[in-house]
Amino acid sequence: MSLTERLVQIVGPGYVSTDADVLAGLSVDHTGRYRGRAGLLVRPGSADEVADVLRACRDAGAYVTVQGGRTSLVAGTVPEHDDVLLSTERLRDVGDVDVLERRIRVGAGVTLAAVQRAASAAGLVFGVDLAARDSATVGGMASTNAGGLRTVRYGNMGEQVIGLDVALPDGTVVRRHSQVRMDNTGYDLASLFIGAEGTLGVITTLDLRLHPAPRSRVTAVCGFADLDALVEAGRAFREMDGIAALELIDARASALTAEHVGVSAPVEGAWQLLVELAGDTDQTERLAEALDDARLAGEPAVGVDAAAQQRLWQVREAVAEVLGVYGPPLKFDVSLPLSAIHPFATQAADLVAAQAPDAIPVLFGHVGEGNLHLNLVRCVLDADTEHALYSAMMELIAGLGGNVSSEHGVGSRKRDYVSMSRSDNDIAAMRAVKAAFDPTGYLNPAVLFD
Amino acid sequence: MSLTERLVQIVGPGYVSTDADVLAGLSVDHTGRYRGRAGLLVRPGSADEVADVLRACRDAGAYVTVQGGRTSLVAGTVPEHDDVLLSTERLRDVGDVDVLERRIRVGAGVTLAAVQRAASAAGLVFGVDLAARDSATVGGMASTNAGGLRTVRYGNMGEQVIGLDVALPDGTVVRRHSQVRMDNTGYDLASLFIGAEGTLGVITTLDLRLHPAPRSRVTAVCGFADLDALVEAGRAFREMDGIAALELIDARASALTAEHVGVSAPVEGAWQLLVELAGDTDQTERLAEALDDARLAGEPAVGVDAAAQQRLWQVREAVAEVLGVYGPPLKFDVSLPLSAIHPFATQAADLVAAQAPDAIPVLFGHVGEGNLHLNLVRCVLDADTEHALYSAMMELIAGLGGNVSSEHGVGSRKRDYVSMSRSDNDIAAMRAVKAAFDPTGYLNPAVLFD
Ligand SMILES: Cc1cc2nc3c(=O)[nH]c(=O)nc-3n(C[C@H](O)[C@H](O)[C@H](O)COP(=O)(O)OP(=O)(O)OC[C@H]3O[C@@H](n4cnc5c(N)ncnc54)[C@H](O)[C@@H]3O)c2cc1C
Ligand SMILES: Cc1cc2nc3c(=O)[nH]c(=O)nc-3n(C[C@H](O)[C@H](O)[C@H](O)COP(=O)(O)OP(=O)(O)OC[C@H]3O[C@@H](n4cnc5c(N)ncnc54)[C@H](O)[C@@H]3O)c2cc1C
Repeated sequence: MSLTERLVQIVGPGYVSTDADVLAGLSVDHTGRYRGRAGLLVRPGSADEVADVLRACRDAGAYVTVQGGRTSLVAGTVPEHDDVLLSTERLRDVGDVDVLERRIRVGAGVTLAAVQRAASAAGLVFGVDLAARDSATVGGMASTNAGGLRTVRYGNMGEQVIGLDVALPDGTVVRRHSQVRMDNTGYDLASLFIGAEGTLGVITTLDLRLHPAPRSRVTAVCGFADLDALVEAGRAFREMDGIAALELIDARASALTAEHVGVSAPVEGAWQLLVELAGDTDQTERLAEALDDARLAGEPAVGVDAAAQQRLWQVREAVAEVLGVYGPPLKFDVSLPLSAIHPFATQAADLVAAQAPDAIPVLFGHVGEGNLHLNLVRCVLDADTEHALYSAMMELIAGLGGNVSSEHGVGSRKRDYVSMSRSDNDIAAMRAVKAAFDPTGYLNPAVLFD
Repeated sequence: MSLTERLVQIVGPGYVSTDADVLAGLSVDHTGRYRGRAGLLVRPGSADEVADVLRACRDAGAYVTVQGGRTSLVAGTVPEHDDVLLSTERLRDVGDVDVLERRIRVGAGVTLAAVQRAASAAGLVFGVDLAARDSATVGGMASTNAGGLRTVRYGNMGEQVIGLDVALPDGTVVRRHSQVRMDNTGYDLASLFIGAEGTLGVITTLDLRLHPAPRSRVTAVCGFADLDALVEAGRAFREMDGIAALELIDARASALTAEHVGVSAPVEGAWQLLVELAGDTDQTERLAEALDDARLAGEPAVGVDAAAQQRLWQVREAVAEVLGVYGPPLKFDVSLPLSAIHPFATQAADLVAAQAPDAIPVLFGHVGEGNLHLNLVRCVLDADTEHALYSAMMELIAGLGGNVSSEHGVGSRKRDYVSMSRSDNDIAAMRAVKAAFDPTGYLNPAVLFD
């Protein structure tokens, strides 16, 4: 029996495709910058089907690339080996919210937005938020340990996952659904799949933690004349009880949103910071005091009601929208010690001016964690120049004590740079784990390892 | 060259011992209930020495048992195979506190109390606290992912660890010290060693996260006539911003502390709850409101200044002291859904009454996480009866949706019960990881797996 026939047997004829257009559409990454080639698409409908699909592919010697919402910004879903594309889109069950224990069980293919809606309908909130919420799936987010706009308050995606089903490369399913949070009964295998980018198994179901909705919230956007003043304020704000968001937006980002979306913050200063506090009690006065202590360029814009808060958030949300206005941007997701943010901004700008003079470097991101996104908008380079610039940027980051991937993961885009952040012994240990789960290396072969 | 000679070469003659009394003293567990036999003690002074010791032992076909503070309550340090005991007591470096980034680097053999002192001297706090603080080491605590009195606020030990050096069973050292917290550059290996109880490698150095010291704190002990009322209050309290402790103490525990230490809480009700709030602002009123909403048996005792707070904490601290007054207690560390706490208390008491009628069952612990400790004080049983009772208790816990180990780990004591909390596929995956790191199984051979 051919692999296609076997897969049809497992998932049914409606869920296997070899249509060239479908495959081509799924073989390009979200930015449109990277393209691969796939042999077949399979869409299993349950954990057991996923496991059977994996076993069939392994037995047939086929490579498998896992696809969730395909919003990866490191080309994590681009097939490089005529792969079988395994889509999680049919794993769409949304369970009931357990209000008492504050949890929900969902399929890996459920979007972030769907989880947010379910939580909100139950008067709770989900701890991760990011701009790709309508497409990004919780399986993909767990596999990349996604961060985002609320990490400063609730941590990354991994900190929301309290249970998992995972189909392993050998075709078995590990189910881990503790009814309780405390569990010291052996290895924390769940943590191993978090951030493994699909190289160790396919997550099929997740139990997610939900949080009480804060009763009170206050948001401000404030401007700074220089970056040091912003970083200093950020350092103070992130220590505060109830810190709920801390987002940097540079002058080039706000110029772009003003030009293309007609949205800008009503504050002076080249460097803007969105800060939000939330909690059981009114936070307005505490925020005002903290803002008084910061070296602002002018009056901050403070939002005390939901409508005003939404207007302030629009500026930050608009940034994601405008990055692609001149074609696919070249993206860098970097983590830095707070003390290295200013040196990075300066040196990265110099690098771009020298090697990509036409590009507009836009800097924004989650400053509470030292997690910034540098996007080179209008960046058209030949392959060699792009490679040289990319590598130089990775070296700059590593040299400043940062990690070459902060929240987006390694994918295929950064696999050549992992050794800048991890030692040889460290990588050897990672390879030993990979070999223990997937000795033939057929699962997500383009991701993480070269 | 004999193994002893080789070890002397590695660590120097002063740090290898075959003294029978020394070895006998180190071969018994903290409670005095479990005893093994060791062949040799080695005390390496650095990560590289630990790695060399491991390689030497592996090459010689010797078993190695790792010992930190030896406060394990699941006999995790008891050698069963004439083992080499590898003590971390010389890994005692305490680095400077980095106040700006709120972190400290320490050797694995540093005690919890030493870390707490260093943090406090810098105006910060460490996130884990437990009664064994003067002996328990951070290496042991990371290896067991210890919980304790502050888990409800800061999480377990694993959530405090932001960097690690680990000597692997193959004699290499993996060093993982990111200067930044965000890091999606591959597998989260650190999480794998957290809670692995020394079966995958020996932790030699840790970077620990520190927290800002709350400016304000308020503590109360309140009494409840029935357990349901306490659980209901606990459920409400644990949702509150600033919750800093939530400890249950039952009537038998307070009777023992009153009798043997002369300490008891000035409140009515068989079930007591210690609750603490802490934060940037004064919490007294918020606590008073929350206490008003609870179904208390009488007036709560509230401590607003440090001296009064210390008096209230004494009750809880005294519990750990009195458990051994009639010889080694039989200990159960259980995690339960909050809704199962009452059924557990009743059914466990019935079980004890039937199988160990002379024992005094004492229940206390971290109710915020549903993490309770049942101690059978004055429990002298023949081996068969003890085994039957222990197994029945594990079945009761698992049947109520709890885990057979909550925060103490599996050690050697609970290895036969892991399958009550983890599935066959799950255990197979754990074994695959163990085999990847330690194919001959010479490291901590008595721990976790049977
Ligand atoms: C506008 C925009 C904003 C973004 N903002 C953020 C942000 O703030 N923070 C952030 O962290 N990221 C952000 N991202 C990146 C992206 O959304 C995240 O990486 C997200 O987690 C990917 O989810 P996905 O479902 O799209 O995964 P995919 O892109 O489909 O896959 C990501 C990786 O995970 C693997 N994978 C997917 N599903 C599974 C599964 N069920 N089991 C095993 N492996 C799987 C894939 O093989 C791939 O390697 C943003 C992206 C966009 C387009
Ligand atoms: C009075 C008292 C109160 C306690 N309260 C709590 C509590 O509230 N919460 C809680 O979680 N626990 C509690 N415990 C249990 C105990 O203190 C913890 O398990 C603690 O983490 C053990 O630390 P240790 O240094 O004593 O480790 P040890 O007992 O020496 O070792 C524990 C396990 O870890 C391994 N190990 C030790 N060091 C290393 C290392 N460097 N690398 C690799 N493996 C290592 C050992 O082989 C063993 O398997 C309590 C114990 C006592 C006696």
